[in-house]
Amino acid sequence: MKEFDPNFAHTVYFWLKNPDSQEDRKAFETSLGKFLENSDFAKTKFIGAPPRASRDVVDGSFTYSLIVTFESAEAQKSYQDEAPHKLFINESENLWSKVIVYDSTSI
Amino acid sequence: MKEFDPNFAHTVYFWLKNPDSQEDRKAFETSLGKFLENSDFAKTKFIGAPPRASRDVVDGSFTYSLIVTFESAEAQKSYQDEAPHKLFINESENLWSKVIVYDSTSI
Repeated sequence: MKEFDPNFAHTVYFWLKNPDSQEDRKAFETSLGKFLENSDFAKTKFIGAPPRASRDVVDGSFTYSLIVTFESAEAQKSYQDEAPHKLFINESENLWSKVIVYDSTSI
Repeated sequence: MKEFDPNFAHTVYFWLKNPDSQEDRKAFETSLGKFLENSDFAKTKFIGAPPRASRDVVDGSFTYSLIVTFESAEAQKSYQDEAPHKLFINESENLWSKVIVYDSTSI
């Protein structure tokens, strides 16, 4: 098995206000993609959405997920303060009704 | 920025019944580590815990996080059915009080 061993993982689940609006989805995806493209600190990125077929034990109610990993907690802190991050929040916060964020350091 | 582009990400947050018990933590970490070591399907893995310093917007109440990625939704399904997965659940489900699972396909 390939190891995936960053020091810090930041995962975010977004619930859009209008998950069926193609316009809102495109605006969100464009804004998030631009942010990650311009980040100096994110080591790896993953943007996802719930699969069509899900299982009972799984929370498939979110609209988008984001997994970003970092070399260190310090790099994650720098990412939080980056101008592209602030721009993404300004551009897109009106699109979502709920966000859940989990931060993890590798054990 | 390095791309991290699996097709499927499976993230799990575990709340242990006794997060301060070193014995329970060791049992959980050993069981989870053994499972991932023996999985034929997980492409990459990350086992984490909340960082000491957290931010207001972050849910830092969980005890352990797991991020596993797969080549495909089919590989993830195979992983769910693997003997090492079932053994992990049998060994460890008495240790946790709550689990949240999110599945995502890459957009």
